[in-house]
Amino acid sequence: MTQFTGTSDIRTLLRKTGIEPFLVGLAGYIEADFRRWEEFEKAARLASHSRDGVIELMPASDGMLYAMKFVNGHPRNTESGKLTVTAFGVLADVATGYPLLVSEMTILTALRTGATSAVAARALARPNSRVLALIGAGAQSEFQALAFRALLGIEEVRVFDIDPDAVDKFRLNLATSGLRIVRAGSVAEAVRGADIVTTATADKTRAVVLTPDMIAPGMHLNAIGGDCPGKTELHPDIVAGASVFTEYTPQTRIEGEIQQMPEDFAVTELWQVLTGAAAGRRSAGEVTLFDSVGFAIEDFSTLRYVRDLTVVVARDIDLIPELDDPKDLFGLAVPAARRPAAIAVRDLIPG
Amino acid sequence: MTQFTGTSDIRTLLRKTGIEPFLVGLAGYIEADFRRWEEFEKAARLASHSRDGVIELMPASDGMLYAMKFVNGHPRNTESGKLTVTAFGVLADVATGYPLLVSEMTILTALRTGATSAVAARALARPNSRVLALIGAGAQSEFQALAFRALLGIEEVRVFDIDPDAVDKFRLNLATSGLRIVRAGSVAEAVRGADIVTTATADKTRAVVLTPDMIAPGMHLNAIGGDCPGKTELHPDIVAGASVFTEYTPQTRIEGEIQQMPEDFAVTELWQVLTGAAAGRRSAGEVTLFDSVGFAIEDFSTLRYVRDLTVVVARDIDLIPELDDPKDLFGLAVPAARRPAAIAVRDLIPG
Repeated sequence: MTQFTGTSDIRTLLRKTGIEPFLVGLAGYIEADFRRWEEFEKAARLASHSRDGVIELMPASDGMLYAMKFVNGHPRNTESGKLTVTAFGVLADVATGYPLLVSEMTILTALRTGATSAVAARALARPNSRVLALIGAGAQSEFQALAFRALLGIEEVRVFDIDPDAVDKFRLNLATSGLRIVRAGSVAEAVRGADIVTTATADKTRAVVLTPDMIAPGMHLNAIGGDCPGKTELHPDIVAGASVFTEYTPQTRIEGEIQQMPEDFAVTELWQVLTGAAAGRRSAGEVTLFDSVGFAIEDFSTLRYVRDLTVVVARDIDLIPELDDPKDLFGLAVPAARRPAAIAVRDLIPG
Repeated sequence: MTQFTGTSDIRTLLRKTGIEPFLVGLAGYIEADFRRWEEFEKAARLASHSRDGVIELMPASDGMLYAMKFVNGHPRNTESGKLTVTAFGVLADVATGYPLLVSEMTILTALRTGATSAVAARALARPNSRVLALIGAGAQSEFQALAFRALLGIEEVRVFDIDPDAVDKFRLNLATSGLRIVRAGSVAEAVRGADIVTTATADKTRAVVLTPDMIAPGMHLNAIGGDCPGKTELHPDIVAGASVFTEYTPQTRIEGEIQQMPEDFAVTELWQVLTGAAAGRRSAGEVTLFDSVGFAIEDFSTLRYVRDLTVVVARDIDLIPELDDPKDLFGLAVPAARRPAAIAVRDLIPG
């Protein structure tokens, strides 16, 4: 049987593990898979754009397991009480093609984005970074804050959002987290004195959330809100002046902050830093930028992690038939065909 | 909530409707969607090949609904009692990106392949065709026979398989179908006198199931087993001498019988025949060939049909979170983060 983990199962799982331990374990899986980057079959995601949003398929395989995430991005969904980004995923066995696990990935995507941000910052930010500026207090914000606390020891989060209710929600959710939460009156105020800056805004436009005057030497910038064509968050001079690190460069050139740069703008892929094949930060005064758009291997790692966790309580679903004779699909499907049809065909079609 | 129809639900559905009425209704949906072919966003499927098989993603959208099928093809699976082809699919709302229905599609794919074959034959075979030759009595065979009976009025099926047990299974499954089943001793014997010939064999090679000497004037050939690069069933002279009809030509040139032909070999797409934009059969003596590989719009139609059927008993699954404040994913996911973690992180990672 195929296993299924719905949103209630993932909530149960997180209650059992605690979120910070979950994030630490997940970061370990992501880093391990990034270190064996060259073993993976990789592709830019397959996108179907429509007036109000996009539906994307994100596959990745290491030759043993195959993962695919179905994810949407619809900024106007919040107007009707729906999420901008939802997702689900499947993990399959490459040897047989059979799905092993189908899982909700709306919550899991938020977790893996936080974990990936922290993996990158651990490799790129100055050691002993303690202050995080968070621009945008939306659905991703708490996951960012806790991942940075759990993996880097961040102690203070300076948060700004144009929506004060979002900041209230953020403070309430993290009230007992141990983090010192500082409400900032502006982006500039939030960024001033920060070691690390995460931008996680949702507008589907060429926004300029950060301008060059806000950037101090030695900062690490974690830009996660600019993640599709025409959607960026940083002034181009910031990108041009930073050392830029990417996930899968062919995809980032289309979707990331570097879509503002020439095609040959030099970048380093994060996996190269993690394996030691390329340098990360070269000096304490350098500005580093993780131009993150989200890549399929992170979802692969997440599904692999959820399946491996011994505390998961997944449910069985009958997604794939089990039968005695694999050539006799008909006998399984329609034994009742030997009996007359119970209803007339005209009753089958609505309208 | 997202709806889910597993294999048990589809079996229940087929018991309620009867298989032939189900096939007739499904054929209507497929034909209706083929007639509005130009409204669809189309793409060749996204394939991940491995040593023993392939995993494919097949998306299609009409701007209102988006469908995606996950399907594998692993010929050696039967050695371990598994199916060569399994599948599941998702139907989503384009306006919000939310999935509406997740369904098993192993059984549904067999049904839609039979229905599509019959839709094509109804447009291309000689009127009053009564005898079907069926080469290959595997998982697809009964669905072919019943679709041709329900949609074209086929009365006799002449069946051949190299595996006599498969033919026994076929006869048993269709014993009370009303079809006259004739066991043939060879491919040539099965084909002799047939109006329509379906080839549905599974070898992943350049097989030559039909040779030119077997083909009589006026036959309609329905070649459904040749459906990936390097896998064909017909002698190239048969293809060269027939009027060839395809689903989505860019995909068929890679996967179909016409991979044996030059790049500019003339074909007609089935939707053009169904809309009247192109001619189908031109004379009673012409040999027509439906070079079918399976296309994503057929799966789109199938999921749309299942969702529309008033007799479906689908189950709700919590694939997508429902929450009061769409910016507060964290509050939904991990209210327990306010409590200490229940277990240590080292207990989370196996091994």
